[in-house]
Amino acid sequence: MVRALQSPLAVSLGDPAGIGPEVIAKCWDNRDSFCLPPFVAIGDGRSIAAVWDGPIEVVDDPRQADAAFDYALPLIQLSAPDSDAPGHPSVSGAHASLDALELAVGLARSGSAAAVVTGPVAKEQLYAIGFQHPGQTEFVAERCGVAPGNVVMMLAGPTLRTIPVTTHLPVSEVPSRLTSGLIESRGRAALRGLQRNFGIPEPRLAVSGLNPHAGEGGQLGREEVEIIEPAIAALAAEGWRVSGPHPADTMFHERARANYDAALCMYHDQALIPIKALHFEDAVNVTLGLPIVRTAPDHGTAFDIAGQDRADPRPMAAAIRMAADNAVQRAETA
Amino acid sequence: MVRALQSPLAVSLGDPAGIGPEVIAKCWDNRDSFCLPPFVAIGDGRSIAAVWDGPIEVVDDPRQADAAFDYALPLIQLSAPDSDAPGHPSVSGAHASLDALELAVGLARSGSAAAVVTGPVAKEQLYAIGFQHPGQTEFVAERCGVAPGNVVMMLAGPTLRTIPVTTHLPVSEVPSRLTSGLIESRGRAALRGLQRNFGIPEPRLAVSGLNPHAGEGGQLGREEVEIIEPAIAALAAEGWRVSGPHPADTMFHERARANYDAALCMYHDQALIPIKALHFEDAVNVTLGLPIVRTAPDHGTAFDIAGQDRADPRPMAAAIRMAADNAVQRAETA
Repeated sequence: MVRALQSPLAVSLGDPAGIGPEVIAKCWDNRDSFCLPPFVAIGDGRSIAAVWDGPIEVVDDPRQADAAFDYALPLIQLSAPDSDAPGHPSVSGAHASLDALELAVGLARSGSAAAVVTGPVAKEQLYAIGFQHPGQTEFVAERCGVAPGNVVMMLAGPTLRTIPVTTHLPVSEVPSRLTSGLIESRGRAALRGLQRNFGIPEPRLAVSGLNPHAGEGGQLGREEVEIIEPAIAALAAEGWRVSGPHPADTMFHERARANYDAALCMYHDQALIPIKALHFEDAVNVTLGLPIVRTAPDHGTAFDIAGQDRADPRPMAAAIRMAADNAVQRAETA
Repeated sequence: MVRALQSPLAVSLGDPAGIGPEVIAKCWDNRDSFCLPPFVAIGDGRSIAAVWDGPIEVVDDPRQADAAFDYALPLIQLSAPDSDAPGHPSVSGAHASLDALELAVGLARSGSAAAVVTGPVAKEQLYAIGFQHPGQTEFVAERCGVAPGNVVMMLAGPTLRTIPVTTHLPVSEVPSRLTSGLIESRGRAALRGLQRNFGIPEPRLAVSGLNPHAGEGGQLGREEVEIIEPAIAALAAEGWRVSGPHPADTMFHERARANYDAALCMYHDQALIPIKALHFEDAVNVTLGLPIVRTAPDHGTAFDIAGQDRADPRPMAAAIRMAADNAVQRAETA
């Protein structure tokens, strides 16, 4: 890290039976080669010790983490009632992952942590303990006092950033759920996020079509003409640099990517296919629209390989680096 | 070319006002560095001369092309009534492009040409002269006596091959048009094509889901459970190596691509986003299910840049190389 952070990053372990503890410990192991700034892990240290035999330093406050980070993985210990074996999630582990997330967000809100990076959680277990949100993003939004409709998920890799307008919907429901208002609000949040988190003063947003060839002038679907074009016009009228609707298949090659800072996509796979095809190892999930910086690796708990020393720490390292960069950027432009 | 072809390839110029003549001439210019086998251009030579000042040798028969290819671009001249200026398509040009396509297919069917490579045509102009097919693929199928439902379009690049089950449909119509039978017939044609054209004795086909996360066990859409899984089971019961339904967003990164020879995708952009993101300059459109080999570059007429010496010949070169490879493969396995 060239630019220094005021405080360390808070990294929640996620589900203790998933690969979160392992990849976070491996990030500390490789902190120099991965160019990682000081961070403090938050959760039950037993889940780290179960998969890693490196040094852990329990701290009470993130401020103590800076000094410890050189010789040990700093940890704010949150004891769970039970300790899960890797690969065997439980209700107790769901509680632990939620406690860690909540504390990490609180530390970032109070300024004790520079940003939040979240380890992967298991939604099924969370739902079993009464968790009411579609995912961590919405929980973080609520804890930050932001309406879920005003936050957006961006997938960011070294050469491409994408934002899905709709997310976990069956394809058959996408056309009826797309509205100009939704595209505008997602677009606005994305553009502001590019300014605040990425320091791009006049960001360029490329908006995809929904249909093949962006509807071919209405021949292959009317959503471009009736829904997407009006949204683009509305954003442009506010002074934003917005282009489209572009045929999605010709938006993501190298030369095309040079024409925009982020692509606003109409549905889940339209945004996630290109980012994962190009940047599977280093795509980061960034939540925009929050008063704090929050990133996450773009993978799940991977219970099937947990505890086998097979998890790749690079996505977590990319999430930590991007959180640090975003936090520095926000501090500079604040 | 390491392996020799019995006869040259037939390359139709496509629309004379498009970039077809230019990229074909540039392919001849770069025949050595592009590793291209002898081919004969088919169409009106005036459209080449309008954009290129290299040597053209008019021949009557593809067999004369082999000798000429060293010092000139061999051409079977089909005179159009009018000569179009680059970038200005006309009805006369549409007739010319159709005549060239028809002759190229006839030469391949008779064995005088080893394969057909088709330059880009303008559908709007073709429709104006009464062309009844959705595209060149269906026209070629008809001229070969194959029902259009039995041919499939494959997009093939150096590290990925994809086949869309549905093609030019609005997204809103995709769910209702997907059937197990359609997936099976496309899958079968793809698997046979991998054997015949690509020489893969036991091809592996990865089938995508339609919905995010391949429907997450029915939570995010029922098409996987009701339509796609039965199709996969039916193909597997015939002895084919078929896997899926896979979440589309995690199918296309490098490690995932190593697990299959082709990906069968449910809709246009699902197949075309990854192939164009990864292989924009060298993705080839291959028609499988025909008695002849037919390929095409995966781009259109690009009237906006025609005649400006700006067209990139690499996609056409990739289409010519792949046609030659496929033809050699089919001759060997015949």
